[in-house]
Amino acid sequence: MPDQWLPPIKWAGDAVAILDQRVLPHREKFLYCSTPEQVINAIKTMAIRGAPAVGVAGALALALGARSIRTDDPKEFRQKFLKLCNKVKNARPTGANLGWAVEILYSIVVENPKAPISELQKLIVDRANGILEEDVAVNLRMGKWGREVVAKGARILTYCNAGALATADYGTAIGVIRAAFEEDPTLSVYSCETRPFLQGARLTVFELMRAGIPATLITDNAVGSLMSRGMIDLVVVGADRIAANGDTANKIGTYMVAVLAWTHGIPFYIAAPRSTIDQGLPDGSGIPIEQRDPGEVTSLNGKRIAPRGANALNPAFDVTPYKYISGIITEVGVLRKPFAKTIRKALQA
Amino acid sequence: MPDQWLPPIKWAGDAVAILDQRVLPHREKFLYCSTPEQVINAIKTMAIRGAPAVGVAGALALALGARSIRTDDPKEFRQKFLKLCNKVKNARPTGANLGWAVEILYSIVVENPKAPISELQKLIVDRANGILEEDVAVNLRMGKWGREVVAKGARILTYCNAGALATADYGTAIGVIRAAFEEDPTLSVYSCETRPFLQGARLTVFELMRAGIPATLITDNAVGSLMSRGMIDLVVVGADRIAANGDTANKIGTYMVAVLAWTHGIPFYIAAPRSTIDQGLPDGSGIPIEQRDPGEVTSLNGKRIAPRGANALNPAFDVTPYKYISGIITEVGVLRKPFAKTIRKALQA
Repeated sequence: MPDQWLPPIKWAGDAVAILDQRVLPHREKFLYCSTPEQVINAIKTMAIRGAPAVGVAGALALALGARSIRTDDPKEFRQKFLKLCNKVKNARPTGANLGWAVEILYSIVVENPKAPISELQKLIVDRANGILEEDVAVNLRMGKWGREVVAKGARILTYCNAGALATADYGTAIGVIRAAFEEDPTLSVYSCETRPFLQGARLTVFELMRAGIPATLITDNAVGSLMSRGMIDLVVVGADRIAANGDTANKIGTYMVAVLAWTHGIPFYIAAPRSTIDQGLPDGSGIPIEQRDPGEVTSLNGKRIAPRGANALNPAFDVTPYKYISGIITEVGVLRKPFAKTIRKALQA
Repeated sequence: MPDQWLPPIKWAGDAVAILDQRVLPHREKFLYCSTPEQVINAIKTMAIRGAPAVGVAGALALALGARSIRTDDPKEFRQKFLKLCNKVKNARPTGANLGWAVEILYSIVVENPKAPISELQKLIVDRANGILEEDVAVNLRMGKWGREVVAKGARILTYCNAGALATADYGTAIGVIRAAFEEDPTLSVYSCETRPFLQGARLTVFELMRAGIPATLITDNAVGSLMSRGMIDLVVVGADRIAANGDTANKIGTYMVAVLAWTHGIPFYIAAPRSTIDQGLPDGSGIPIEQRDPGEVTSLNGKRIAPRGANALNPAFDVTPYKYISGIITEVGVLRKPFAKTIRKALQA
């Protein structure tokens, strides 16, 4: 159940408090953001990460921004707010939820052309808070649907962190695991460390330990070994962007896990709210893949791993073709193939 | 070509000098071992690693040991030497070359039942030095055979470190890359970092940079992403133990790379000397897989990554079924399927 302090983002008076995930699990430090730029910076530097959490952070950044725009001219307010929307939307490219949240808030301005500034401000702040609250509710519903795919005593593999820390609370993939664990305390979880940012080692293991769910950490490259030895029954991971046909972008390495699960006949599930779905993209080939600083690969904890001057690539996400996905767990049910059809239906539900 | 100081093991007067690979590439430090126990410790702690290099280290440990056994009784000498052979052989379980080297040196004692101790000592030391020297010669031959599988301008993926540092010099998989690069300077290499010990990031990138071969470091979990984007033409890796049917144990994660290569139709080659082949094992199911300290996964550079008290698994190797292997590059040629037949023939060559 929701944790006293785990939510990665919340209001602290007039500021947005962001739990700095870069220093977890060793330190529990909050960043207090009083400007949208500070929130954008927290997103870019991955102090807050996870597509749904980034969506919520974007919403709160716009709430901060809307409140602080200094003008009496409604037209100027709209222009400044649009400019800010674009800045927030571009903080990170791959996750769909950020753009989704920004669109919702921007539409308030479009749909209320005659509203005075103070009313727009109130509408934006209220809707941003609604996005925060709904995210938790959505995850709880996802957990209820998702636990049906978890067999008794299942040994579940998860990847990266799709937990409370990646959302407003509770989590998507970890939400499913939490919900299943409530009914079946014999299940257990393997968490891949998820290089280079180590979300699995630092965040997922931490969340699971706090929830009392048996967790074992492995390196990402050990997935094949465990699967070939019959040690994994099920894979559940989150998502950053889902195309209309079910192709899914998620943390780099997810595709590797999916191919290995397929090879071993192990079910592979995505858990994600509908806000992760990008109906505008027919398939995964159009999903923008963020390329991050190679320094995240060549150094760790501020210490160089590779030789000085080494070249590196650091693609932050990869795309898993829908073929490898057994089902997509959403807040309105578990979607099955053909995803093009079930996704369309889910968005209308 | 052989490097002035890269060989990971050499004589320094009466001691065996081992380049401490745990602190590379940041420091170039030698461990001077004057007892077999010190060499065994260097093997166990991975100051020296790589199946062929470990085989050579085992041979030199026995040379040190044979010289220092204090007795005038030939029977006692044999008993003490046998005891030492067992200790050396058990230093690490998965690589075949260590047992192979120990067998060769022990057979000297068996095959010369009437030789005086001083003669046995000389035979053992000479044969150990022969194992050291032959390893380099074998790698050079492997390079000549292997470069035939490398197309012009190939973008080669390698895994872990199968280089000069994993052998007496020159390397197996990296030996093939060196030989190919001599004829085609347009090839390039992607090196997987290889968690948890980071042999790829620390050792392979280092060797390739020294050799002037274009190298790019990636996290292990990025292999699928690069392959799906058409960025890899060929995979060449080393081996720790090859069963009679071609099933191959190598560093944890190799199996993942092989499955991904298979999925994308990319050739996947093993480069290994015949001393890596274990004809006694019909298939890979009998290969002993070393389980190392979970602390290697939960901490890095002496700093904890995972939460205090986190569970972890640390299997050091996995087994790639022969199905996924396009060919095995040895010093007597590139072996093709059916491996059961070509391996048998290669061992008789």
